[in-house]
Amino acid sequence: MFHQPHHIDFLLPEWLESYSNTYKPSASLEERMRFVIGAARKNVEEGSGGPFAAAVFESGTGRLVSLGVNLVLTQKSSILHAEMVAIALAQKQLDAYDLGSPGMSAHELVTSTEPCAMCFGAIPWSGIRHLVTGAFSEDARAIGFDEGPKPENWIEEFEARGIRVTTGVERDAARDVLQLYARTGGHIYNSRKG
Amino acid sequence: MFHQPHHIDFLLPEWLESYSNTYKPSASLEERMRFVIGAARKNVEEGSGGPFAAAVFESGTGRLVSLGVNLVLTQKSSILHAEMVAIALAQKQLDAYDLGSPGMSAHELVTSTEPCAMCFGAIPWSGIRHLVTGAFSEDARAIGFDEGPKPENWIEEFEARGIRVTTGVERDAARDVLQLYARTGGHIYNSRKG
Repeated sequence: MFHQPHHIDFLLPEWLESYSNTYKPSASLEERMRFVIGAARKNVEEGSGGPFAAAVFESGTGRLVSLGVNLVLTQKSSILHAEMVAIALAQKQLDAYDLGSPGMSAHELVTSTEPCAMCFGAIPWSGIRHLVTGAFSEDARAIGFDEGPKPENWIEEFEARGIRVTTGVERDAARDVLQLYARTGGHIYNSRKG
Repeated sequence: MFHQPHHIDFLLPEWLESYSNTYKPSASLEERMRFVIGAARKNVEEGSGGPFAAAVFESGTGRLVSLGVNLVLTQKSSILHAEMVAIALAQKQLDAYDLGSPGMSAHELVTSTEPCAMCFGAIPWSGIRHLVTGAFSEDARAIGFDEGPKPENWIEEFEARGIRVTTGVERDAARDVLQLYARTGGHIYNSRKG
């Protein structure tokens, strides 16, 4: 007799909501990014996952819609990259599978490191209209993470689909968190290269 | 005051478990695929999502580990493609983020249609060692679905990572389900092309 649960349930770290409340809506991309990088750092310090965080904001107002962190190791799920968690939570918050539905404010995804191949493919379906990244893929590769088979021209692919891309925002601070993770013995999963 | 839930919870359709119990472990890829295509058809007939299903099997024994269907519209989440649901459920079942961990049996993902860009990127992280597909991407495009920015050489990318790929298994039956969905007025989401 085959049995599987009737739902898929992932737990978020307890610190996430109180950390979220430290955010003050800001018109500055740098401030939004610093908030996201702070969550990545906290995820490392608390041992709740990999050194990555991502958040969805209303582009105009800077209102925070959702905050996600990487939960691969603690929730034992390879799909729980920070971007996927932020997208899933934002769609729950707004009760819409398309964050760019007609009549909705434009939304941006601010992520502490450039997306891997999975998150790259997920972003066009999410309805996000602007992607903002901190550390570069090479910074993640430098500590052993693999970004997967992402096209070289990934930024052009987004722009061809009407998704604006801004890279390297607060890169040094984002890279510091990656290096903190490596230095403190954080587990580099997905390093099997397939 | 910012508030977001402490977990991410997705409901699976009620019919999924009883349908799963119709499966008899089989050494034949075609039989495994017919079971998966039957779930895609049922997902259309029950109105629980798009015309796609996917399952994880133990490669050797044909034991069913998880069965997923597309839940984008009903769970209002753009990440809930059938492959993502099957991967998430299999990792829950086996309590492992890597279905190809040392000491574990090899696992295969059988999906009723070739993966989109997101699922393409997710598969290498999942630990799946063999991907088996039914309908071709062009069959999904023929009814208006967009596969996203997936590399043309996606099969080679998988093979370079040690993931075997078998395409076109029971393609006609899989395509029939796509066409049933289109004919019965199923909503083609993600058709905004970005």
